[in-house]
Amino acid sequence: MMGGLTYKAAGVDIDAQERALARIRQLAKATFTPGVLSEIGAFGGLFTLEPDNPRGAVLVASADGVGTKLQVAQQVGRHDTVGEDLVNHCVNDILVQGARPLFFLDYVATGKLEPQVVVALVEGMARACAAHGCALLGGETAEMPGFYPPGAYDLAGFIVGVAARDRLLDPAGVVAGDLLVALPSSGLHTNGYSLARKVLLENEGLALDSHLPELGCTLAEELLRVHRSYFAALWPLVERGLIKAAAHITGGGIPDNLPRALPPHLGAEVELGSWDEPPVFRLIRRLGQVPEEDMRRTFNLGVGMVLVVEEAKVAEVLMALASQGPGWVLGRVVEGPGVRFVGQRRG
Amino acid sequence: MMGGLTYKAAGVDIDAQERALARIRQLAKATFTPGVLSEIGAFGGLFTLEPDNPRGAVLVASADGVGTKLQVAQQVGRHDTVGEDLVNHCVNDILVQGARPLFFLDYVATGKLEPQVVVALVEGMARACAAHGCALLGGETAEMPGFYPPGAYDLAGFIVGVAARDRLLDPAGVVAGDLLVALPSSGLHTNGYSLARKVLLENEGLALDSHLPELGCTLAEELLRVHRSYFAALWPLVERGLIKAAAHITGGGIPDNLPRALPPHLGAEVELGSWDEPPVFRLIRRLGQVPEEDMRRTFNLGVGMVLVVEEAKVAEVLMALASQGPGWVLGRVVEGPGVRFVGQRRG
Repeated sequence: MMGGLTYKAAGVDIDAQERALARIRQLAKATFTPGVLSEIGAFGGLFTLEPDNPRGAVLVASADGVGTKLQVAQQVGRHDTVGEDLVNHCVNDILVQGARPLFFLDYVATGKLEPQVVVALVEGMARACAAHGCALLGGETAEMPGFYPPGAYDLAGFIVGVAARDRLLDPAGVVAGDLLVALPSSGLHTNGYSLARKVLLENEGLALDSHLPELGCTLAEELLRVHRSYFAALWPLVERGLIKAAAHITGGGIPDNLPRALPPHLGAEVELGSWDEPPVFRLIRRLGQVPEEDMRRTFNLGVGMVLVVEEAKVAEVLMALASQGPGWVLGRVVEGPGVRFVGQRRG
Repeated sequence: MMGGLTYKAAGVDIDAQERALARIRQLAKATFTPGVLSEIGAFGGLFTLEPDNPRGAVLVASADGVGTKLQVAQQVGRHDTVGEDLVNHCVNDILVQGARPLFFLDYVATGKLEPQVVVALVEGMARACAAHGCALLGGETAEMPGFYPPGAYDLAGFIVGVAARDRLLDPAGVVAGDLLVALPSSGLHTNGYSLARKVLLENEGLALDSHLPELGCTLAEELLRVHRSYFAALWPLVERGLIKAAAHITGGGIPDNLPRALPPHLGAEVELGSWDEPPVFRLIRRLGQVPEEDMRRTFNLGVGMVLVVEEAKVAEVLMALASQGPGWVLGRVVEGPGVRFVGQRRG
């Protein structure tokens, strides 16, 4: 591995996680009632109160955290943006199923409740909720002395949205030859921070307040960029029925997330030359000598969202996206499972 | 304070928590959409997809954690019961609004994912979900290296249930003279562990595996008793319209939780002589010399659930409860806010 840093060496064992997830899926599946419409592993769980109504309302629910991006926020003392990150992450996870958000609940756990910190977190969450017409319906603030060190907190979010059952985005309708349309990420979003922090802060010893010309901002500013919500860009497309399926590119990167928008027998060809990677990813790759495979399974690499679109509708989709920041054709759906990267990375 | 241990001295500052909560409520309220039917501070948030339908379905949602009971589980290496605790806690929180559970999602965060630990947690959650006809619809398992020490994890849960809007339990219908019917807790449930651990483990130096004759079991067994679900006992009463309102007695004890089942202008008189406190509470009070006020605001003291019942229906309620473990008349609703404890504690 050329002595480079991998996500596993940074402490995240994705394989062990996968084995536990398989057993967890089995246990969860045994609890499924007739209202459950989704398989485990979907971006959001699907539940209907009307199992016999093919046009009924479907609730789409998802739980998420912010990961070790929280440690950057806690070191810098800026807490509102991770609240926005969390809501936006949750919104994207149900959006790729075709749902718009209804309400959100949060879980904040800390050793000693610092009121101004919790209030800042909620300010960020409330701001992002309001931007989506989503009610911040409740939550739990847990003070656990001795459990979290001073200044540390964890943060989780739960979202419930709604979709019409006959308008759900469904990988089952995807066919070989459909095109992949990508939307840019705003940066790391909320994934890969264990590796990013290890490379930039620990190994390189960079200070969070140092200005890096390559990034055009301080390291803290880059690392705390708010996880983009794709709701404003995508919802009109969902309502117009222009998208077949979509994948939110989070932990596991394109190789692990794009297949979640495809039927099991299909895969994808991703054109590496179709976009410029944002500088932060190039910086991490270079300084950490991170193998390409780990870069791809750890980071979004500038691709925050991938839509699966019928070729005949691609022009209309790209036109509609133009006003919300451009999208581009990332590649195509092909026969056989798995994601294949083709061509040459730019820059 | 007689040198006794208070919850505040144990690290939990309930007043600071209250101040932050006031601001949080304000921020959350600003996000409320027409679907929101609850005020902030309810046991569960209420949301309807049909704001104009007085008989429509209402979704009732709640988020919870397990608190520092997790540290006992982690010390002992038993992880399934805290999973059950979490689900049962969530079920009770929506049950007191008149809702039955639909689905549950979990958030597990840990430094290094130990597959057998996460699987045990999910086994407990799946068991409790299945017992309630509740689907374990999804969740997030977050591996955050360096954030949680080895062997530690945090656990949060999120539940969504449903109630008919015209059958919601509603404090607004409670009048002075209504009676309070209590149901016994199974032990500490999931509240007061910071104080309990400080008194029993830290100050007294008791070992978790020590057998305490006063408890009739080991300390670990007592501290890990599963938070009781009141669903089997209460749901038939809810369906028959026998209960006006109900309070799940969690953090803050009877003084903080019972008023949540009452209109603002009414309070309660609680007869201390109406029940025997379980031994674990007497042990903590005695060994920690804990002031009575702190005992009451920290622990359920053996009262896990309080129902508000019209006097004419009390006999029917007690009869119906008899097969599910007895209930008893705890006191009555009175004019003027606040909870007043009267009479003498037994034992």
